[in-house]
Amino acid sequence: MNQDYIKPDEWSIIEEEFDAGRVKSSESLFSIGNGAMGQRANFEEQYSGPSFQGSYIGGVYYPDKTKVGWWKNGYPEYFAKVLNAPNWIGINVFVNEEPLDLFNCKSVKNFRRELNMKEGTLSRSFEAELPNGIVVEVKALRFVSIVEDELGAIKFEVTPLNQDAEIRFDPYLDGSITNTDANWEERFWETLEVQEDSERGYIVSKTLKTGFHVGTFMQSEILLNNEKVTTEATSSIGEDRISFAYKVKTAKQETAAIIKYAGYVSDMNHKKEQLIQAAGKVLDSATSKGFESLKKEQKEAWASIWEMADITISGDVKAQQGIRFNIFQLNQTYLGEDDRLNIGPKGFTGEKYGGSTYWDTEAYCIPFYMATKDQKVARKLLTYRYNHLQKAKENAEKLGFSNGAALYPMVTMNGEESHNEWEITFEEIHRNGSMIFAIYNYVRYTGDFSYIPEKGLEVMIAVARFWYQRSNFSKDKNKYVILGVTGPNEYENNVNNNWYTNYLAKWCIDYCLETINKVKDGHQEDYARVMGLTDLNDGELAKWREVAEKMYFPYSEEHGVYLQQDGFLDKEIIPVKDLEKKHRPINQKWSWDRILRSCYIKQADVLQGFYFFEDHFSKDQLEKHFDYYEPLTVHESSLSPCVHSIQAAVLGRMEQAYEFYVRTSRLDLDDYNKEVEEGCHITSMAGTWMSIVEGFGGMRVENDQLSFKPQIPENWNAYSFKVNFRDRIVKVSVSSKGTEFFLEGSESLDIQVNNKELTLVPNEQITA
Amino acid sequence: MNQDYIKPDEWSIIEEEFDAGRVKSSESLFSIGNGAMGQRANFEEQYSGPSFQGSYIGGVYYPDKTKVGWWKNGYPEYFAKVLNAPNWIGINVFVNEEPLDLFNCKSVKNFRRELNMKEGTLSRSFEAELPNGIVVEVKALRFVSIVEDELGAIKFEVTPLNQDAEIRFDPYLDGSITNTDANWEERFWETLEVQEDSERGYIVSKTLKTGFHVGTFMQSEILLNNEKVTTEATSSIGEDRISFAYKVKTAKQETAAIIKYAGYVSDMNHKKEQLIQAAGKVLDSATSKGFESLKKEQKEAWASIWEMADITISGDVKAQQGIRFNIFQLNQTYLGEDDRLNIGPKGFTGEKYGGSTYWDTEAYCIPFYMATKDQKVARKLLTYRYNHLQKAKENAEKLGFSNGAALYPMVTMNGEESHNEWEITFEEIHRNGSMIFAIYNYVRYTGDFSYIPEKGLEVMIAVARFWYQRSNFSKDKNKYVILGVTGPNEYENNVNNNWYTNYLAKWCIDYCLETINKVKDGHQEDYARVMGLTDLNDGELAKWREVAEKMYFPYSEEHGVYLQQDGFLDKEIIPVKDLEKKHRPINQKWSWDRILRSCYIKQADVLQGFYFFEDHFSKDQLEKHFDYYEPLTVHESSLSPCVHSIQAAVLGRMEQAYEFYVRTSRLDLDDYNKEVEEGCHITSMAGTWMSIVEGFGGMRVENDQLSFKPQIPENWNAYSFKVNFRDRIVKVSVSSKGTEFFLEGSESLDIQVNNKELTLVPNEQITA
Repeated sequence: MNQDYIKPDEWSIIEEEFDAGRVKSSESLFSIGNGAMGQRANFEEQYSGPSFQGSYIGGVYYPDKTKVGWWKNGYPEYFAKVLNAPNWIGINVFVNEEPLDLFNCKSVKNFRRELNMKEGTLSRSFEAELPNGIVVEVKALRFVSIVEDELGAIKFEVTPLNQDAEIRFDPYLDGSITNTDANWEERFWETLEVQEDSERGYIVSKTLKTGFHVGTFMQSEILLNNEKVTTEATSSIGEDRISFAYKVKTAKQETAAIIKYAGYVSDMNHKKEQLIQAAGKVLDSATSKGFESLKKEQKEAWASIWEMADITISGDVKAQQGIRFNIFQLNQTYLGEDDRLNIGPKGFTGEKYGGSTYWDTEAYCIPFYMATKDQKVARKLLTYRYNHLQKAKENAEKLGFSNGAALYPMVTMNGEESHNEWEITFEEIHRNGSMIFAIYNYVRYTGDFSYIPEKGLEVMIAVARFWYQRSNFSKDKNKYVILGVTGPNEYENNVNNNWYTNYLAKWCIDYCLETINKVKDGHQEDYARVMGLTDLNDGELAKWREVAEKMYFPYSEEHGVYLQQDGFLDKEIIPVKDLEKKHRPINQKWSWDRILRSCYIKQADVLQGFYFFEDHFSKDQLEKHFDYYEPLTVHESSLSPCVHSIQAAVLGRMEQAYEFYVRTSRLDLDDYNKEVEEGCHITSMAGTWMSIVEGFGGMRVENDQLSFKPQIPENWNAYSFKVNFRDRIVKVSVSSKGTEFFLEGSESLDIQVNNKELTLVPNEQITA
Repeated sequence: MNQDYIKPDEWSIIEEEFDAGRVKSSESLFSIGNGAMGQRANFEEQYSGPSFQGSYIGGVYYPDKTKVGWWKNGYPEYFAKVLNAPNWIGINVFVNEEPLDLFNCKSVKNFRRELNMKEGTLSRSFEAELPNGIVVEVKALRFVSIVEDELGAIKFEVTPLNQDAEIRFDPYLDGSITNTDANWEERFWETLEVQEDSERGYIVSKTLKTGFHVGTFMQSEILLNNEKVTTEATSSIGEDRISFAYKVKTAKQETAAIIKYAGYVSDMNHKKEQLIQAAGKVLDSATSKGFESLKKEQKEAWASIWEMADITISGDVKAQQGIRFNIFQLNQTYLGEDDRLNIGPKGFTGEKYGGSTYWDTEAYCIPFYMATKDQKVARKLLTYRYNHLQKAKENAEKLGFSNGAALYPMVTMNGEESHNEWEITFEEIHRNGSMIFAIYNYVRYTGDFSYIPEKGLEVMIAVARFWYQRSNFSKDKNKYVILGVTGPNEYENNVNNNWYTNYLAKWCIDYCLETINKVKDGHQEDYARVMGLTDLNDGELAKWREVAEKMYFPYSEEHGVYLQQDGFLDKEIIPVKDLEKKHRPINQKWSWDRILRSCYIKQADVLQGFYFFEDHFSKDQLEKHFDYYEPLTVHESSLSPCVHSIQAAVLGRMEQAYEFYVRTSRLDLDDYNKEVEEGCHITSMAGTWMSIVEGFGGMRVENDQLSFKPQIPENWNAYSFKVNFRDRIVKVSVSSKGTEFFLEGSESLDIQVNNKELTLVPNEQITA
């Protein structure tokens, strides 16, 4: 646990101690990114202690060979890996030719690292005594620009404190990097070119197999006491590496500094053969603007993100820090600029889960992006899946489905399945439903039905076909059943009639049938096109309808709840609270078979259905299911607490809701699961946002209206958030005294607050 | 399919054509072994075509790193691999310095390969025209001695037919071998020493990690027209290789020959540092006996095996060839000499399944060895597991069991689990029951109860403890249930209440309770020792009894059958005969999830229980279950047809019984599953033997008596088999006219034939 290690602060993540044992964790927490690229907070200078090096480029991946014991038919050929890309941050530093290496210093004092979330910068300062006895003060600041998204900039200052010294800066690019997460210990990059051009350095690299071309580049400036100086650089070019050496004679207490502009250009945005040229243009722009003005731009750009996305909390600085960290990381990971990109579970902070797209995007992230950005952004996320429809059909075909049925992949980079555990890849099919739920949710929130006739309907039909084919009729039950699935609770594998999956399947078919009629009525041209494309006829529709009408849902009369799956009641039911501590977390302490046959739930499963379809059930039903399932839930997925927090809030259990909120919002900062060194849990951060907005704020969209049922945790004075609803910006400020609404713009807006109509007048503070 | 490729012959496996595309299949089929070592039928001389090189030493294995996508708690660290060991058969042949290589000859005529099962030799002959135009006739014969089990011998003859020629023989040993089945493409052997000692060659090698030391050795003799000649050999020693070159000037039509004595000695039987010395002794003995007399010994030793184990079939040469091939391979694989060895599913014919021990031994192989060998052999097989008891306890502990509960591994070399698919390793726990069934079966057959107090009871208690702990009480069913298992039908994973597993679990507990009382009464000393060792008390016994009494068995009132598992009736039930051919075999044509949710059964599951516990059920019940399950069975395991053959015979359905028999007996010869190139299905060969003895012959042991209900397939004239029952040898000869019994020895024996008592008088042909 990191508790008390990260200093509480409203706008910054701060550590004030150098602890080599925590370097890897801090590298995750202090990560920076701009949606297009990002990196772990590795040190610029040489560091010989344990470190997890990572610098990533959105969309650049490698299809690592699948690794299994016994091959099963249908396995994907590869597991997509996000790639550690060439190192552009490196600046080796020598003081009188003694290398600066924090792992080897005689002492390190006043170490401080700060991730300034308000301005989007990472800074570090310390005083170190080198093995040669020279004490230096170091200050380093860097950022990846969200204005020029191929550019990063670093300012690295060294001040000898106890004697004059010659400071040597060796900025470098290094293409000989490897991945931490690699199945076969192969190298993933090939260096094509290393070039020097009047103190600019370039490396052009190519990923093996996928053939992505990436240009990494740099140019540096040297300063003495903050004044630019001209120093002769000597360069050194290796097979995969280029570096320059700049020497600065520095009197005691004088400050030598280097500014390094660097970054990536790739063939996703440029022609392969023009990468060096493109990199040169980025450097031209960077050097002409200069470091300070780039930094100013960065601050302004982040201010404008915060203007819309910020949530304020007063009276609970850790909660404030937590939510801002979540919002910051989400924006570092995905800004909605590029519909080829998506939100990897670790963003740019690590390699686990391959960095690929999961159902997390549809189930957890879309609400955040819908409410805090232009609605085009959410539409881009939907379009990402639309663009993958053909591959989803091929994936289904590989598993024996036909007639244009689609199964979206569990994990993907380019639409192809790239996850290789059979119980997940082949069986965790509920993901297919969240693709449709996201469309429904988007239309409900934005009111933009046009997406459906234009794109969504094709996806809906392909998914409905899948559910129809994936069900079979049980003579025994006289119902349709769905056998052999894994639900959201991955602590069950290959179960029959997972309630959530069956419910979602039925809903997908029903919603598709309803939508087909709507499109038929209102969008004849699109209707004709889609019917032509899909060859759908009334006979097939009738068969779908039959399946939806006769879908089986396991239910316990005794407990009055839907059962997570068939046979759930055969388990030995012991609430989590009665489980001895030594057994937790069960995913570390128990063998897999023991986990599977236990009653313990990894993350919301039946309750995930109650979250998606809250309006299908009464509050009593919710309460009954919550009281049955939550006590059996170990919350060993980062996606678990947020759903429970929202539902606890609905049930008026604010203490419990708050507990879950804290757990979700500070999961990484406090390192609950002792794994933050692998990277941060990016997708669940959107769930944290939902915990406040949908949980405490009680925000819903009902009948094309925003509605709120605001509550506030006891120890908070106030909190506020802003949402963009159909291009109307509403700021909601909640305190124990009541809730105030502020509507931007020029038109009034009717909303519901605690089931009462309220009209918001533009630019007026309205109290509910 | 190989049909018509292997020539029908009563005593030999013969191929009469050189077909490079079939070389790998034939390498499997023509394998030779002696229980201690064995090898695929690779050519002695250079062969540049596709080949699967394999030479194996019983008990010498390598713990290859486990290969999985996502690590799950409890996975074994390694997957044991049988190791391709240094090549001792190699003799490169040059004719006027042109290498003999069947893949590169201008023509190959009169190719013939014969595995003489009666004598235990492999021979090969052909005429080949070499690229240099010289036509040679080649005859090669080799065997691995079952008398001197560290020794193999080869005679390789070359006759130039169309001109005089110089024949060069280069016999060699090669330690630089690799495995076909290897997870990480690493080398598994390290060469420690290569030594030459007056025309003897030695290589001492060590396996990495496991550190087995193996000495490979050779010595050769040269003959011209079958007369020994002295030729100067030149030797060549490499890092992992030693070879000698012998040149023989040969006139047209004269025959040059080499005899090579070679083989392995290992530190399983000798001191590490004395391997070369031990090898020298083997060579001393071999050369003093000479090739012809070694060959004679081999023939005599096989004759004595056949004397006891042979089954004759008259009127169906393919059936005769099939059963002898099965009996021959079983004896090549395991002769019962060494209780550290066991019967790998591929024997010495391939590497698949790692060459390790599976439950096949207990469920399928023990009856064969009990009936065709001294009863010590079966006792050795039981002792193998007794010796692994501690490791089975550790394995169970790793999975969360306690108090001395044991879970025998799914796959093992040394008692440790070495299989790494969770659905098998963790869940296919019925294997634990077959350990106990084998003890029961051994005592039933041999009458040797002494094994139980001495060794068996400890195993029985540890296994009963496992079943007790692995069950849990279902409030819903008011019964004990066993959740999350994989039954013998591996086309179901992680199911609840697999009937076979539950039944076996209950039986293991009942049998253990009953046996404890017997030991208490009759073997007080052992009783006290075992109770002391296991710390077993009445309280624990009462809890076991409760579980056994209240065990749940899924049952369908509608169909009147036990259900394979909970929820089986939810499946879409379509008999295999109605499945289009394009879907077969489903394990190649369908994705894993589709297989799992289908109703198709890989091998006997419920029916395996009816096989083990035939006497617990009526014939009507058997018929009902057979008629329900067999039509859903795809028999995609080699272990499937035999059980069904026996049961069809019990039901008087001889046509079907015969069909299954042919399928099991010629599975490899006819290459039904197009996979024989990977090796032969050794363990299922014992099932073939059972099909005749227990199926057609209807042999059982009831109340300490042998009983028979002989039947005969319509197209057979007669068949006969012999069994050793409690040191009494009974030969049974069945024809359409009736059955004759012949008892060896000096005491009479009462048996049952078709439910009637019959007294066999020694050395008299008695007709029933």
